[in-house]
Amino acid sequence: MTQTAAAAGGTETTGGADGRREIGVTELVLRDAHQSLMATRMALEDMVDACADIDAAGYWSVECWGGATYDACIRFLNEDPWERLRTFRELMPNSRLQMLLRGQNLLGYRHYEDSVVDRFVERSAANGMDVYRIFDALNDVRNIKQAVQAVRRVDKHAQGTICYTESPLHTVQGYVDMAHDLMELGCDSLCLKDMAALLRPQPAYDIVRAIKESVGEDVRIHVHCHATTGMTLVSLMKAIEAGADVVDTAISSISMGPGHNPTESLVELLHGTPYTTDLDDERLLRIKEHFAKVRPRYKSFMSTITGVETEIFSSQIPGGMISNMESQLRQQGAGDRLRDVLAEVPRVRAVAGYPPLVTPSSQIVGTQAVFNVLMGDYQSLTAEFADLMLGYYGTTPGERDPEVVAKAQAQTKKEPIDVRPADLLEPEWDRLKIEACALEGCDGTDEDVLTYAMFPGVATTFFAEREQGPRNVGVDPAQQATDELAGAEHGKGPVTGPIDYSVTLNGHAHHVTVERA
Amino acid sequence: MTQTAAAAGGTETTGGADGRREIGVTELVLRDAHQSLMATRMALEDMVDACADIDAAGYWSVECWGGATYDACIRFLNEDPWERLRTFRELMPNSRLQMLLRGQNLLGYRHYEDSVVDRFVERSAANGMDVYRIFDALNDVRNIKQAVQAVRRVDKHAQGTICYTESPLHTVQGYVDMAHDLMELGCDSLCLKDMAALLRPQPAYDIVRAIKESVGEDVRIHVHCHATTGMTLVSLMKAIEAGADVVDTAISSISMGPGHNPTESLVELLHGTPYTTDLDDERLLRIKEHFAKVRPRYKSFMSTITGVETEIFSSQIPGGMISNMESQLRQQGAGDRLRDVLAEVPRVRAVAGYPPLVTPSSQIVGTQAVFNVLMGDYQSLTAEFADLMLGYYGTTPGERDPEVVAKAQAQTKKEPIDVRPADLLEPEWDRLKIEACALEGCDGTDEDVLTYAMFPGVATTFFAEREQGPRNVGVDPAQQATDELAGAEHGKGPVTGPIDYSVTLNGHAHHVTVERA
Repeated sequence: MTQTAAAAGGTETTGGADGRREIGVTELVLRDAHQSLMATRMALEDMVDACADIDAAGYWSVECWGGATYDACIRFLNEDPWERLRTFRELMPNSRLQMLLRGQNLLGYRHYEDSVVDRFVERSAANGMDVYRIFDALNDVRNIKQAVQAVRRVDKHAQGTICYTESPLHTVQGYVDMAHDLMELGCDSLCLKDMAALLRPQPAYDIVRAIKESVGEDVRIHVHCHATTGMTLVSLMKAIEAGADVVDTAISSISMGPGHNPTESLVELLHGTPYTTDLDDERLLRIKEHFAKVRPRYKSFMSTITGVETEIFSSQIPGGMISNMESQLRQQGAGDRLRDVLAEVPRVRAVAGYPPLVTPSSQIVGTQAVFNVLMGDYQSLTAEFADLMLGYYGTTPGERDPEVVAKAQAQTKKEPIDVRPADLLEPEWDRLKIEACALEGCDGTDEDVLTYAMFPGVATTFFAEREQGPRNVGVDPAQQATDELAGAEHGKGPVTGPIDYSVTLNGHAHHVTVERA
Repeated sequence: MTQTAAAAGGTETTGGADGRREIGVTELVLRDAHQSLMATRMALEDMVDACADIDAAGYWSVECWGGATYDACIRFLNEDPWERLRTFRELMPNSRLQMLLRGQNLLGYRHYEDSVVDRFVERSAANGMDVYRIFDALNDVRNIKQAVQAVRRVDKHAQGTICYTESPLHTVQGYVDMAHDLMELGCDSLCLKDMAALLRPQPAYDIVRAIKESVGEDVRIHVHCHATTGMTLVSLMKAIEAGADVVDTAISSISMGPGHNPTESLVELLHGTPYTTDLDDERLLRIKEHFAKVRPRYKSFMSTITGVETEIFSSQIPGGMISNMESQLRQQGAGDRLRDVLAEVPRVRAVAGYPPLVTPSSQIVGTQAVFNVLMGDYQSLTAEFADLMLGYYGTTPGERDPEVVAKAQAQTKKEPIDVRPADLLEPEWDRLKIEACALEGCDGTDEDVLTYAMFPGVATTFFAEREQGPRNVGVDPAQQATDELAGAEHGKGPVTGPIDYSVTLNGHAHHVTVERA
């Protein structure tokens, strides 16, 4: 169960047999691909039959775990995410298993005290994790440090992440500086992470080249791009030309749109160039065909954005979030305000000091933009936006608007901070353990305590129902057709109604229901 | 009506205002995009409202006419293709209108005698055409010559086309030689045409660079790629780096899959590079939104291939044709033989001397592969395949298998030829005119005679029904849902049945019906 494949398995990327430079590939199908394309709903049951082929295809690593998949396991699928991890470890003994970790947030939405971070890394490593891609939504390396140290301690691969964004303050030199800071933490490699498909070919080249030249040609750089804007495969190519070592792709049958570039296309495009992937075509075809069969089961969860969206260059809101916002607004009878909200997002982002937009900053900025449009500029701050303005998520790249900081201070009665947020936290492991163990169905393991720590509300239900076993929410396409028919006959449509928020005003949380007047 | 915008209109591509090199863009949405994605069914009615934006967006040219669109107009839409051309001319006075011309085949499937070629070019120019992209399926420049001369005579833009393919015989030098030959015919520009999305980035770069270096840096090179393999946007980028002047794209809402790379993605990816398109973002967004609304009307004609297909690298069969073959085979109860047929295609292609696979060679080679799989190797040759083997389509790149040539000779009682096929044709215009004018509804114009010449069977029905006016085969999405419901209720499924062929055996044409034993 606690096999460690990192050192032994996988493919090294230091030169192909024929002198061409071998480019490593991280396969995303088991995590980010279905998260981006089918609302993270894919059940383990629909993955296991592909694992042998994935394990033998020659990937540098297999991304298979992260916040949303963990959440979806316990919220929708009644699957124990730790069991999922152990299954991957067993079925892919030769692969580096990789996860996405939100630094001091772990897989949750708040900062955890350092000992919880240590415990999470220790347990996930013991259950089979090899490579930790660690990021902070604000690019504040202080929020990444503890996790990197924890990964180093258990002798696994710590990858420091630079979230790519664009703003008047973001420069190639700024990314180089961050790369230096991450390597000083002791990272084994770096990732340039483009969560919204904004990374154009020229900056992809420039940033990778500048990091190699400044930090060292032997610094391993991974590049992660989404496909939403339809142009990032070109960016991956330019990153490779600049020296990138590993790029992320997803098997073609679960690729494109708000997902990622297709693995097979990368393989093909490198033919004839000084680069090669050495992935096994036959295995890739089998993996493709497996997921092509699985995909229709999740039709009802599929992203409605299937084409190319270049409009996001102005709002910078990741594709998946636009559809969330759209449904949020529709539920409030304000579906016609989407353009206003998208126009408001860059303004809110400027006020907040130009944070990158990625979980959770994308949600925080996006929701405040909705509030501004529906209730007037900064008339009401969400609790999270107030915390962001006061430094409780860390340091933002630029200065935060002093007027709105003052409003946040007045509303929350909290002082602005400039220390590392987790420095203010009291030890919490013992309390979390007591609380978790009091829940029906909690088995008392550290894994269960961590589940409770990260998702306290959902964990309660999950522990109680866990023994019922996994619920695959995928639907047989034939059954789906029947359901649709029934739905159409009975005139079913989307449910509309008011939407609830928790708004903290003057330090007091209020339950606010917003609906059309 | 006979406005000539070529000289005055459009955007030249010799340097942007800021010193960056301006890349011209040919918009494909009015021709190849809907041909590749929705079986060429888009009605003029669904295009006209986008024309003002297309005309003002800054494209180098607007492709809007070709064999399949002409055919679909008279076969399915009861639209006069000449009226469509005149409408485009009127609605896009500032644009270069561009068409795809099959050399000596014009828009039909046989060789026409030279005076018919001259007449076609003269009439289309008079009706508003500016740019003629002229290709031959075998890359036999003798089949391109007459059309180029005709275009030069009417002072329009003649673009000589190199069909890109891969084989043991196809080399960069071979393409350079062909480029020289085309320029010697008097072409105004060259097109590197990748009809099956096989053009990888490195050969794209190598071929464009080699042509520029050998034929001249000022030779204008256009590059056309399909998107089926998911990697050709990278190829366009490398072609641009190598000096390509114009690239072809389609507005994003009618792009990708077996179609083309999205126009907006090209615009975005060039930001920050030494290249620019100078297209108008706002116009592009409006064009996108127009066709996003139109697209659902043609749902029932949409390609079933929506994702990325890299398997075609082995068969080289264009994506659209695979689905045709699949349905051909299914109709014969041999749906399980598709893999055999796809494996047979490269063998047939080798026997035929490695022609590129593009209309009509793709159909000829593909159908012979079906015959070989179902009836045994070359037991029966289609009339067209026999002609191909005997040189009646022109010269193939490699030697044709002498044994199969002998079979073709025996079956057809025709001698192999090595002259330009059209040299053997008698003058035919007067005969065509008499035949056309005898048809009910023929208006006696040269345009009608040309319609009859190229599509004799369909023209007969079209002339008779023309006065009923256009039939838009697009369906309102709401109506569509109702129809689907009705279909599901009555258990409708795909119709299967025997399939008919015309097989020429010992010089006699036989009507052969093939069905499962």
